[in-house]
This record gives sequence, C-alpha cells and structure tokens, in this order.
Amino acid sequence: MQKPSNAKGTRDFGPEVVQKRTYILNTIKEVFELYGFAPLQTPALENLTTLTGKYGDEGDKLLFKVLDSGDVVKKVNQNDLASEDNAAFIGSIASKGLRYDLTVPFARFVVQHRNDLTFPFRRYQIQEVWRADKPQKGRYREFTQCDADVIGSTSMVNEADLIGIYNEVFHKLGLSNAILKLNHRKLLEGLVDELKLDFPVTKFTSTLDKLDKIGEEGVKEEFINLGIDSNKIDQLFTIIGQFQLNKESLNTIASAFNQNAIALEAVNDLEKVLSYVEANGGVNIDIQLDLSLARGLDYYTGCIFEALIPDSGIGSVSGGGRYDDLTSVFGLKDVSGVGISFGIDRLYDIMEAQNLFPEDRIKAKQILVCHFDEESMLYGAGVASALRNAGISAVVFPEQRNIKKQFNYADKANFDICIVIGGEEMESGNLSVKDLKNGENSKMTVQSLIDSLS
Amino acid sequence: MQKPSNAKGTRDFGPEVVQKRTYILNTIKEVFELYGFAPLQTPALENLTTLTGKYGDEGDKLLFKVLDSGDVVKKVNQNDLASEDNAAFIGSIASKGLRYDLTVPFARFVVQHRNDLTFPFRRYQIQEVWRADKPQKGRYREFTQCDADVIGSTSMVNEADLIGIYNEVFHKLGLSNAILKLNHRKLLEGLVDELKLDFPVTKFTSTLDKLDKIGEEGVKEEFINLGIDSNKIDQLFTIIGQFQLNKESLNTIASAFNQNAIALEAVNDLEKVLSYVEANGGVNIDIQLDLSLARGLDYYTGCIFEALIPDSGIGSVSGGGRYDDLTSVFGLKDVSGVGISFGIDRLYDIMEAQNLFPEDRIKAKQILVCHFDEESMLYGAGVASALRNAGISAVVFPEQRNIKKQFNYADKANFDICIVIGGEEMESGNLSVKDLKNGENSKMTVQSLIDSLS
Repeated sequence: MQKPSNAKGTRDFGPEVVQKRTYILNTIKEVFELYGFAPLQTPALENLTTLTGKYGDEGDKLLFKVLDSGDVVKKVNQNDLASEDNAAFIGSIASKGLRYDLTVPFARFVVQHRNDLTFPFRRYQIQEVWRADKPQKGRYREFTQCDADVIGSTSMVNEADLIGIYNEVFHKLGLSNAILKLNHRKLLEGLVDELKLDFPVTKFTSTLDKLDKIGEEGVKEEFINLGIDSNKIDQLFTIIGQFQLNKESLNTIASAFNQNAIALEAVNDLEKVLSYVEANGGVNIDIQLDLSLARGLDYYTGCIFEALIPDSGIGSVSGGGRYDDLTSVFGLKDVSGVGISFGIDRLYDIMEAQNLFPEDRIKAKQILVCHFDEESMLYGAGVASALRNAGISAVVFPEQRNIKKQFNYADKANFDICIVIGGEEMESGNLSVKDLKNGENSKMTVQSLIDSLS
Repeated sequence: MQKPSNAKGTRDFGPEVVQKRTYILNTIKEVFELYGFAPLQTPALENLTTLTGKYGDEGDKLLFKVLDSGDVVKKVNQNDLASEDNAAFIGSIASKGLRYDLTVPFARFVVQHRNDLTFPFRRYQIQEVWRADKPQKGRYREFTQCDADVIGSTSMVNEADLIGIYNEVFHKLGLSNAILKLNHRKLLEGLVDELKLDFPVTKFTSTLDKLDKIGEEGVKEEFINLGIDSNKIDQLFTIIGQFQLNKESLNTIASAFNQNAIALEAVNDLEKVLSYVEANGGVNIDIQLDLSLARGLDYYTGCIFEALIPDSGIGSVSGGGRYDDLTSVFGLKDVSGVGISFGIDRLYDIMEAQNLFPEDRIKAKQILVCHFDEESMLYGAGVASALRNAGISAVVFPEQRNIKKQFNYADKANFDICIVIGGEEMESGNLSVKDLKNGENSKMTVQSLIDSLS
C-alpha cells in the first residue's frame, strides 16, 4: 500500500486554515463590493491558444498543460520525437492548460462578452491559479489570487478608489501600518527623456529595480556601465527615494524634472489621484512616491502600486497599476484599465505571525451535547435542534460513551461549550453547561443559553 | 487574430450568476456549519497514484491528466508508441491529475492526517471537480461539488443530522416540496437472501435501477431472464415502491420480508434514524422509503439517500449514503462514515426556472454618484466615501459625461440608486436621489439616505 501524499507544491487546508483564509478573502471581497466591484469567475481549464504567448517564454514553460482525452499515444508525431521538439510534441497531445493568472482569462472574458458588458466595468475575481514553478518556502504550484480591475475608464478617480480599497482592507485586517508605494511609468519615461538616455525605459528600470538588492552604489556602477555619465546619475539620485505623496513632493519632483513634458503628465495624474483621495476623506496608510518602483513595467502604462507591511520580513503583499492594452492581444484595442491583486498566502503568513486573526470572528461558537444513555441522547437531539433553530452550531455526541470520553472529544475537536444531559436535566429542563474556554459550569435552560450567546 | 473562446465544457460565470451561485453555496455552507461540519479544502492537483483506480476503468479514462514540466518529449518510450499503449505512454509523461471528486482527496487527507484528526470528524468541502466527459446540456467538464461527511461513527444520529441538513437547505432555498428518497443496502441484501436469488445484490439492483426507464413490466421481464421465478417477482413487487418513512411502513416491510435477519438490521437502523429525526422536531420535506433506490451500491453499505425536486424535470439534486471503507484504499481500515453531496448546477437551474432567488439577498443595493463637473465630482467622492463608511456600496461615475449618459450607465450596469450632485446640492447638502427601481425622485442628506437604507 503506497503512502498517499500531496502533489509537490500543493497543500491541504484543514478547518482552522480554511476559516482564517476565508476571513481574509471575505474581508477583501466585502471591500471590493463596497467600491462597486462585481464578482467574476472563469474556468480553471483554458484553451492553450488563450494562454500561450501571454506570459513570455518563461511563463509558457510554467503553464500546466492538460492532456487531451482519448488515445493520445496515436497522435504523437515521430518527427517531433526525433527532433526533440518539446513544444510541437506537447501541441500534438495537449490543447488545454490551467489558469496561470486572473488577468488573461479576464481579458478573454471581456473580448467574448464585449457587447453584453457595460463599460466602465468593475470586476473582482478570487480564484486559484497554477504555475509549474519549483516549489520553495512561500512559493506554491497552486495558490489563490485576488484581483480587482476597472476597465473602460481613464479617470484617476479609479486609482483613488483602489487606494481607498488598500486603506480599508489593511485597516480591517489590522494591518494599518501598511505602506503603499506609488510610481508612474511616465515619471520613469520622463527621466529617460530628461537625462537623454538612449536606451528604452525598461532597461533603465530593470537596473533601478535592483536598488534593494545591490544598493545605491551597485546601481550607480551598473548605470555607468550602461554609459550614463556620472553627473546625470547624481542628478538622478536626488529624486530616487521615497517621498510622501502630497502637493509639495509633487512640486519638488516637477522641478527636479525641469518641468519635463512627459514627467508633467505623470505629475498631473498624481495630483488628480491625490485630490480624489483627499475628497474621499484621506487614508490612514502611508502612501510613498517611489521612483524606483518598476514592477511589471512591460505592462503598466500609468500609475504603479505596490503594498507592503513593514517589519514583516515579507516582500509586497499586493501590486497593480494602469494598463492600456489588456485586451488587444485578443483583438479589442484601446481598452484602458487599472487593477490590483492581493497575495493571500503572504497576508495569511503575516497575520498569523502577528496574531491578528480575531478568534471570535474566525469560527462561530460550537456546542457539543453530551449524554448518559439512549434516552438522554434523544432528549439531547431536541436540545441541539433548538440551538440550531436559533442559529447556533450544535452536535450531539453520536456514540454511547462515558462522559469523560465525551469531554475529551469536545476538547480535542475544539468545541467551545459542552451541554451535559442526564435524568435531572431532563426532569428540570435546566441543562448543565460547561464553558470549555474558561472551565465554568452553570445550569440554565436552552432558552437562557441561546439568549446568553446571542 | 483568433477569436477567443472557452475550453469545451467549461463556463464563465458573470456577476449575476456568481451572486446567485454564491447564495446557494452560502446557504448550504451555513447549514453544514450549524450541524458542526468544518471546512476542508484539498488541492485541484493530485498525484495520479492517488486518483487512478479509484473510479473504475471508465473513471480512469475521464481523469484529466496534467503533463509533467520540462522536456517531456525526451521521456517518451518508443515501445509504448509501437504498441500504442496509451496508459504506459501517459504514465511516462504525466504524474498529476485534476480532482475528479471530493471523496478520494478527503480519504487521502484523512489517512495522511489520521494522527492529528479527532474522530468522529465532520467535514464539508465545496470545490470544483473536473471530468473529461463529453459535454452536453447540464453536463460540464468543470463543475462544483458540495459534500458533507461524518467519519469515525456508526451511529444513526449522523444519518438523522444529514436528513436535518436536507430539510434546512431545501427550506432555506424555497424548495420545501423536495422529496428525500431513502433506502438501505441491507434491505436489498435481505431481499436477495429472502428470495434465495443466487446472484450478487449489485446485479439485482442494477436491474431494479431501470424501473424509471423501462417500467415495471420491463424490469419483470429482465428478472425472468435472470432466472427468478415469477412468484418471487410478484412477491418482490409488493414491497417495491414508495412508502412514507414511519413506524407503520417499517413494520410492513419487516413483515413482507418475513422478518428476514439481514433486512431486520436495516429496519432497526431506519427505526433509529426515524426516532432521532423525530427527536430533532421532525422535518417538512417528504421522506420516502424507496427500495428501488440503489445509487452507488458498490460503495454504500447502509442507508442510501437521494433528493429530488418534483416537477422540476431534473433528476436528483443530491445523493449520499453510508460507507464502510472510505480510506481502506489508502491503508486505513474500518473507518465507517456517512455523507451527502449537493449538485449546485442542478439546484441553480431549478431555482432559476422557479424564480426562487430573493433579489434583495443576492446583491446589496448599489449607488452611482453622478455629477456635472470636476467640482461636483470631487464633492461626490466625499459622498461615496460616507456611504461606504456606512457599509453601502457606492461608485462615483468616473468620467465627465452629460447626465443622461450617466443615467444610462446606471441603468445598464444595474445600479439601484443614482445620486445627482450639482451646485444646489453642494450648497444645501440635500442630494437629489433617484430610485432606479421605482423611478421615484427625492431630496435628502447623505445621513437620511444612509438611514433609509439601513
């Protein structure tokens, strides 16, 4: 008999973990809905034609491909084997793959349903994704993404709404010390323009992105190797770093950029974001303008977001930004949108480490009804039923066992309260109630117990 | 540009469908939790060693297999190709598969975590499963199952709890006319024993199972072909049919079986179920003893359940029963359990056809804030923020458009209320509020609107 195990990089979530994850997901879901985002679900299985080529060469390798049904052995082409052409071989036997993110399926959905959707369209999507990555601590092959996007609107009020979502979510999860880093692609393009660098902004930012890893000196050295002269580099570093988002810092940046036209477009956007955030009553989280933030720049065309929890030892817990061509890959051009995505596993780890799950909201109180014989067990079934009718979770201990074994079970199975029913209780209607959390015993009717728990 | 499409047999669920499905799932989830079932989630990806051989030959074919990563083309064995050995070929390039049901992963989980679990263990699990079936109306390749099982207890109080769950779920969904069919494997075994039929009970029941399709005469003919003599067949048909579950019908059955010892074990179980159901306060749904019910008999060893909605034109919406060897396939013997599974897609179709979704509970009211210019839009951002702080979903129309376009959007995007903000409203604080459901217009402060919606 083979010992069963999980597939590599996948996890079982037992009751307590599911309850805690559900608490995080429901919190985020509630906030998304408060901001008018509507739920969407797309299937886990997608045609490979939908997925392939959307995530770069590396992504194509990391896509889980699903074998076609039937006798695939007959479909194999000997030429593919002879030339060891892996892609052609896979193409001959697999036409479907597993969802790799929530963005590409969303784009497919929008293009397919463009005539039925009303734009601007606000959707959120909370579903699993699969990546054939090498599993390691904190990296799984199956994990949950949690996205919200507005598409079909270029207004900065959307960016302000997403900032409002960050503020609310972190507040509700007890993570009010969260930092939201903000950047704008056109600040980076303005920098390249103003410094008259003759290479693309992505090359510039991929170097800047290493600031955390190799430090200012390391980045400066790489810039010199790229042929940027050292005066320009010094000029550059006067505005690299973190500023609070406010009118003064935006003015400082505009000046530092010599009012460069491209950079001013970004400053103008950010001023609008700021004014909407202020009109919304401001936020409690810290918003930092960070010109070294360049995540997913191939993709983002305007504001760029990244949220992190200081001192958690964990990188970003969310990211996002504005994009201009979500759906062009499926033939629908000029659909601008902006979105964010939360990483549930990281939020879970931080909340667990900081003991932030509110026990009373993770799991409703559960009652075990204990008994001495068949008669008191039947009486107990009525008690359990009365509790359930009042919305309280109750289980009758299902076997005839001595009371100690029943208490042991209640304890191990994490019940909150035991009701003990014997002859006296049946006669008087006064039940023995034992609170397992504080050890207190009391006598009360079912109705008093219901009242005390409501 | 290729027109994107869904993979065959899969579906996108837009906002309204997600909200309705969530309503059904949350209703079932709440009832499961009231009865002390705790949530479990297992991964979609399982090792094929866990899945293969658990669902019969046909099931093995319907398992979706997932290609290993890396250069699988190099792993192909020429002998497998030459002999067209599909299973061996697949075995060489795929070691994982997609979850086919929730039972086998649950069994794997129990065996892996046997030392950490407290038995009896009550778990529910609501997750997608995948089957490479030929798609047709009402049959999908990706669909949601919704299971509850108690394992590690042989008591009939568990069966009574599951009946209580059926009663509550159908009541809450507005399907109180549901019928719960009940049978017991030992009634069928008693029948084979009493009629002295010399073939296995499963052969007998697979014929009986055709009653709906080929009628009584058809079944009788097949029984004659199986060599049962016609007197016995007539005797048999006196107890085939539907009885209400009550003491009298159980006595009638016991007599009809000539107090056959095997059948009496079943009658004894059913009497206990009945007494616990009565102690729970009884049920509103109709419980029918039906000896022709034989679903999954290879698997079930005691009570067998099947629930259906009369006049829905749709078969069973749930099934289940008691089993004795859930985990033996993974090396853990003698774990008895009982469980049920709801079919969400069928419940959805019935509720949609019968117009049973309560609109006010499917989706919270949503407010669109409309405006005339930048200034009123900023004011509107504050109004939206105040609404959200009071737990009401609100969106500021994100663009500068004429008011008619904003109303059109509100209408198409299914908003419930429009707030219109102009100079007068900003000055007085009295907002123009248009109820899009009844067309009424009124003037009120944000606070009055909040009060009226709470």
